[in-house]
Amino acid sequence: MVNQLAVVGGGVIGLSVAWRAAAAGHRVTVLDPSPGRGASWVAGGMLAPITEAWPGEEAALSLGEESLRRWPEFAAALSADGGDPGLSTAGTVVVALDRGDADQLGVLAEYLRSVGREVESVAGRRLRSLEPGVNGVRALLVPGDLAVDNRRLLRSLHAAAIRHGVKFVDDDAIDVGPGRVRTVSGELNCDAVVIAAGARSGRLHQALAVRPLKGEILRLRARRTSLPPPSRTVRAVVEGRPVYLVPRAGGELVLGATQYEAGFDETVGARGVRELLEGAARLFPSIDEYELVETAAGFRAASVDALPFIGELDEGVYAATGHHRNGLLMAPVTADAIVAWLDGEAPPEQVVAADPHRLGGK
Amino acid sequence: MVNQLAVVGGGVIGLSVAWRAAAAGHRVTVLDPSPGRGASWVAGGMLAPITEAWPGEEAALSLGEESLRRWPEFAAALSADGGDPGLSTAGTVVVALDRGDADQLGVLAEYLRSVGREVESVAGRRLRSLEPGVNGVRALLVPGDLAVDNRRLLRSLHAAAIRHGVKFVDDDAIDVGPGRVRTVSGELNCDAVVIAAGARSGRLHQALAVRPLKGEILRLRARRTSLPPPSRTVRAVVEGRPVYLVPRAGGELVLGATQYEAGFDETVGARGVRELLEGAARLFPSIDEYELVETAAGFRAASVDALPFIGELDEGVYAATGHHRNGLLMAPVTADAIVAWLDGEAPPEQVVAADPHRLGGK
Repeated sequence: MVNQLAVVGGGVIGLSVAWRAAAAGHRVTVLDPSPGRGASWVAGGMLAPITEAWPGEEAALSLGEESLRRWPEFAAALSADGGDPGLSTAGTVVVALDRGDADQLGVLAEYLRSVGREVESVAGRRLRSLEPGVNGVRALLVPGDLAVDNRRLLRSLHAAAIRHGVKFVDDDAIDVGPGRVRTVSGELNCDAVVIAAGARSGRLHQALAVRPLKGEILRLRARRTSLPPPSRTVRAVVEGRPVYLVPRAGGELVLGATQYEAGFDETVGARGVRELLEGAARLFPSIDEYELVETAAGFRAASVDALPFIGELDEGVYAATGHHRNGLLMAPVTADAIVAWLDGEAPPEQVVAADPHRLGGK
Repeated sequence: MVNQLAVVGGGVIGLSVAWRAAAAGHRVTVLDPSPGRGASWVAGGMLAPITEAWPGEEAALSLGEESLRRWPEFAAALSADGGDPGLSTAGTVVVALDRGDADQLGVLAEYLRSVGREVESVAGRRLRSLEPGVNGVRALLVPGDLAVDNRRLLRSLHAAAIRHGVKFVDDDAIDVGPGRVRTVSGELNCDAVVIAAGARSGRLHQALAVRPLKGEILRLRARRTSLPPPSRTVRAVVEGRPVYLVPRAGGELVLGATQYEAGFDETVGARGVRELLEGAARLFPSIDEYELVETAAGFRAASVDALPFIGELDEGVYAATGHHRNGLLMAPVTADAIVAWLDGEAPPEQVVAADPHRLGGK
């Protein structure tokens, strides 16, 4: 059966759902005043289930890994539609700046091995030969944790969706129910609706306990005379704060990310910029010579546990939100699940853990 | 005699010269692809001859003070023409963050007293009562060093110049000689020409030994919940680097300024932003809670000594450039000098020291 599908939100999740659903033959309308923006525009671009893993969050790890397995096919389909997500397969390195950090890395490595994931621990000398200019007394190599160019991805998804006939409406949803979406300027009738409104999804359905978790990132560019960016994604914890450096093609580098509760305040803070630059200069001192191109803030859609909300909320009303730091990673598995439900098929089994009713809301 | 005057450059100097000359009855054309921009757009806005003073640079101090004496009348004339430079008369405080800085402050205070300028030295406790939230073990109060809102000033000068019939031409000068300016798109004939092209003046006349001295500034804004900016301009040297905070009306704060040789590279550097934010957080920790609104870079027009170039270069060809950190301060005396020469009158005596031929160039 071909559905008339409404997708609320045109970030990476909404665009992926819209594109895959349209490619499967559904008629799709995306509601978003500025598709391709929002949190996914500000993201670092990591596809990193392993280095985001945490003891007790195995369901999130499995869901992330399942989505990462689907990423090459997702990228190939995008490529067939004329797009390019800028997928980098150089991998990730997690760096310890001192002995205390090294102990923590050991704990992480042990945990990952206990759940069957292989990582390689290397000394500082090996790190320096692999990534010149990166400081560290020890490091974990995680070749399976990848990265995409989030902005290329968003532009590609937007174009691919249009190519498959997806209609974009410059409007905002106020209320969602079975068979209809009420918007700022009217009402849209549909057979099914997907709530993919990120941090703003909570106001659309009471079961969606998501809140904004603000993040700031900086975008930098190597000068001709400075050391080029690392080849891998480099992560560390500097003075208790996570810092990552994600290289882009052409000498660009994304530096992230702060993380705090600030409601929907979109401004960039002096403290965040200072702490990111200080942390990055500890990790990769050459960054001091880089040009600072952009500062930006966005809102992760955080749930109370580590899992997103993917599933049917009411008849024909689906959730695809709450992806926290992992929206880019989880876009393929989320889109595949929604399309499976629309087509009356079984979704990937790992999404069961992301049932939007798991917290007892209704 | 009424001249047809060409002014090359529409920064604070060029606009001031053009406005005052037009008000005196001359017919003026300003050549600048983007008038009101350039270094004066990026400036902090300090009118601070005293706290910029340095032993051995008494001629610059006298010239700066003479211009500051002319500032109230300059501002009143601008006001009569419908403008408003946002002149703040709250004064300046120079802060010592530790005992070593305090010794340096003592040396500066002693020098200023030796040349007859009164400054008041206060203890840290008094500083905290005067400027809540500002750190310091000791401070010098310099009530006579003022500040303007550089961007309001530039907009006001531009509007006042237009009001007096100044013509603005979106073009760039390539070569200047008596009676003519050759530009990218043609030639302009005139009775007199003023070179006020800031750091780019050197290419227009061989006697003008000016070079670009890059500076980066940040513009910040207090949040509703944060401590408001200091009421005075606050200056200090943090780890050998000068830092200043210049408050603006409405909770804005300009934080400056880095200073280094980088040719005409206009990009903002990661190191500059990091060091400014670190220095400011030492001086005024509440700045961490502020919004970072803008980062920008500009080029001071530096001469080899501390003085600008103000005077006749060749017959009918005048220099009004090389103002280094003091263009906003020295705009009134510079404009008055040029207009005096045009009208065959005596210029302010302090500009003799700024003779463009003093270095032996020709």
